[in-house]
Amino acid sequence: MRLSRYFLPVLKETPAEAQIVSHRYMLRAGMIKQASAGIYSWLPLGYKVLRKIENIIHEEQARAGHIPMLMPTIQSADLWRESGRYDAYGAEMLRITDRHDRDMLYTPTAEELITDIFRANVSSYRDLPLTMYQIQWKFRDEIRPRFGVMRGREFYMKDGYNFDLTKEDALHAYNRHLVSYLRTYERMGLQAIPMRADSGPIGGDDTHEFLVLAETGESEVFYDSEITELKFGDRAIDYDSVEQCQAVLEEFTSRYARTDETHDEAVFNQVPEARRRTARGIEVGQIFYFGTKYSEAMGATVSDKDGNQVPVHMGSHGIGVSRLLGAIIEASHDDRGIIWPEGVTPFHCGIVNLKTGDAEADAACDKIHAALIALGLDPLYDDTNERAGAKFATMDLIGLPWRITVGPRGLKNGVVELTSRRTGESEELPPEAAVAKIAEIYGVA
Amino acid sequence: MRLSRYFLPVLKETPAEAQIVSHRYMLRAGMIKQASAGIYSWLPLGYKVLRKIENIIHEEQARAGHIPMLMPTIQSADLWRESGRYDAYGAEMLRITDRHDRDMLYTPTAEELITDIFRANVSSYRDLPLTMYQIQWKFRDEIRPRFGVMRGREFYMKDGYNFDLTKEDALHAYNRHLVSYLRTYERMGLQAIPMRADSGPIGGDDTHEFLVLAETGESEVFYDSEITELKFGDRAIDYDSVEQCQAVLEEFTSRYARTDETHDEAVFNQVPEARRRTARGIEVGQIFYFGTKYSEAMGATVSDKDGNQVPVHMGSHGIGVSRLLGAIIEASHDDRGIIWPEGVTPFHCGIVNLKTGDAEADAACDKIHAALIALGLDPLYDDTNERAGAKFATMDLIGLPWRITVGPRGLKNGVVELTSRRTGESEELPPEAAVAKIAEIYGVA
Repeated sequence: MRLSRYFLPVLKETPAEAQIVSHRYMLRAGMIKQASAGIYSWLPLGYKVLRKIENIIHEEQARAGHIPMLMPTIQSADLWRESGRYDAYGAEMLRITDRHDRDMLYTPTAEELITDIFRANVSSYRDLPLTMYQIQWKFRDEIRPRFGVMRGREFYMKDGYNFDLTKEDALHAYNRHLVSYLRTYERMGLQAIPMRADSGPIGGDDTHEFLVLAETGESEVFYDSEITELKFGDRAIDYDSVEQCQAVLEEFTSRYARTDETHDEAVFNQVPEARRRTARGIEVGQIFYFGTKYSEAMGATVSDKDGNQVPVHMGSHGIGVSRLLGAIIEASHDDRGIIWPEGVTPFHCGIVNLKTGDAEADAACDKIHAALIALGLDPLYDDTNERAGAKFATMDLIGLPWRITVGPRGLKNGVVELTSRRTGESEELPPEAAVAKIAEIYGVA
Repeated sequence: MRLSRYFLPVLKETPAEAQIVSHRYMLRAGMIKQASAGIYSWLPLGYKVLRKIENIIHEEQARAGHIPMLMPTIQSADLWRESGRYDAYGAEMLRITDRHDRDMLYTPTAEELITDIFRANVSSYRDLPLTMYQIQWKFRDEIRPRFGVMRGREFYMKDGYNFDLTKEDALHAYNRHLVSYLRTYERMGLQAIPMRADSGPIGGDDTHEFLVLAETGESEVFYDSEITELKFGDRAIDYDSVEQCQAVLEEFTSRYARTDETHDEAVFNQVPEARRRTARGIEVGQIFYFGTKYSEAMGATVSDKDGNQVPVHMGSHGIGVSRLLGAIIEASHDDRGIIWPEGVTPFHCGIVNLKTGDAEADAACDKIHAALIALGLDPLYDDTNERAGAKFATMDLIGLPWRITVGPRGLKNGVVELTSRRTGESEELPPEAAVAKIAEIYGVA
């Protein structure tokens, strides 16, 4: 993409309303623009990252055998009355009256609707297990929206729901989600630690939140430092294997790691003092097993092997998709701007032309740009007439992990400069070698 | 995908509320389920087609140089008051009051918000031309929603907006959209005819609707039959070329083709009688040039080359994404069910095991299934214990364009059966040859 044809409205000044670094950088990098309190437009650069995150989630959900679908944003109040949550949910639910005076709402979560779909279509244990999920916009009418996309009102969420015959099966689904989420976050360059949490309005006994450690996190967290050394990595896993999923759960949850809601000082004190850590964390996901709470209230039963009607065991599992952009930036930035992990970067690399209009520099940039596109990569080529300093500042701000700098002086020696945004290290090399290195980094060589 | 692990709740009976064939088949094939009046959940099979259509649109928009972004579904009433449309829009706008008693709405279209984004960030002619688009949920509180996704209340729409310095530039953007839409619909297996139309609440003088001919269409249309012989095909086009885009517009709009809103009997009668056609059509998209209507009302100006502040020329361009599923089915079905065009089919082909449990048949099906997946294709393998007749009925209903039938009798002779859903023609051939043929059809050989 040529910058001259793109829409990247970077801001020189930091908007006054932004209190945390991710909000500041998302506004300054032209990723989002506030439409009204807690509600944002996703400008092209922000939208690209949102889609990258969404795609990673889809790929990892498919790997775990979960089936994508989509539920509407506006729902009737009736189902929520059936579950008892319509009155219980409080002022954060955006309530709407349509032209026929029917009570509607903008859905904050979808346990009721998915349970309704299930009960209308599934009647036998033979159709279980079943896990479906969606990635869809949600609304929560926060009284004081803040921190940009981290605590907005309209937000993008992955929510998945498992239906199983027995508690044992449903706990396997729970574990499978935990494994899948570990892989998902790692692919985004994030360490998200599963911590024992409180279930809140969803209900249920078993629940873990996934937290990214960051100074600006809203939750206080307590953990055994050994937990930060765990990596899921590229290990092969059979998501159908109860034992394998259980083993991963045990590995990642046996050490102390809790949010303030479930923190237990006495238990924490059994961790050797040198490994006890208190920090702040950003919640980027949560998994729940809540058994038959909704299936009993809403009559979602199946016939078991003996022909008895039994309520299904359920759980729900969420990832805060739009919030993840904020969390990733909080975890990966410096004082010049964002530093995107390769897995979610909006463009694979930047190309900076130090002297737009110089025939040789233009030709070299065009060639690098075309070569990267031919490899299936998506570079951002700054072909504008800005001075070099401004071009570097923009590239640093928007945080592309790699930059190829092209200028007449280097070209005389047959080289361009390849720079890592993360380390700041540069090397000079021929244009073809720079392209080859980018291809190698992204595994398309 | 193995059907035993999928969620495909096909219905034997036709739900009474469905009046048109696409609505009936979408319900029966387990593609959608009504959540409340005019609001649908997209079950896995329906969701897959929705995504296929969405991806084609994204690819064709990228080809035309348009930039994707995303605007929120809930917007403040303030901007709509600025344009004057808040009061003008009427009861179809879903109006909402938030917890702070602010007037909000569920956006039916986004001219105001995109114009606000533009005016806040663009001030010079040097940043033009610019076209941005989104694919996002919209809401229109229809008094009498009907025909399933064809006239629902919550619907998925592609809406794009161009900003240009002059009327001439904006008309090029208009033509570019027309060309791009022709390609887009053809890739979905649809003939959508651009017809001169009425601009309605969007405003403006120049507008074409794209209509798919179908008995159940809501619009009456009048056209010269020569127009149905036009194909855009696979021709190369330079979207930056004013001449090339203009030529396509002329080719596709010079013959008489109008909806009842703009029909002119006297002009129509100049078409030779043998070529005069009256039919019904489904509107699947519309393009508008409305000049400075919004930019003047909202102060979206840029400085031109001489330093004068001038309002930008704009247009907007929409594709009814969710409605397209209905339109494609109306245009492509028979009395057994849907017949998906290859470009949008939810699965590339079906595999029917005539004798699940037979070791040889199971092994052959597994091998075909794995071979197709290895080619990057997405087959649906019916590995259930249903009898053959029911399996065929389901495959016919859900409309996969190709089916491979595997049974012990054929395998004894080393063959399986490959059947075209469209023609009903079958041929016997070795399993490897059937896989190779499917690969060839989808261009992955």
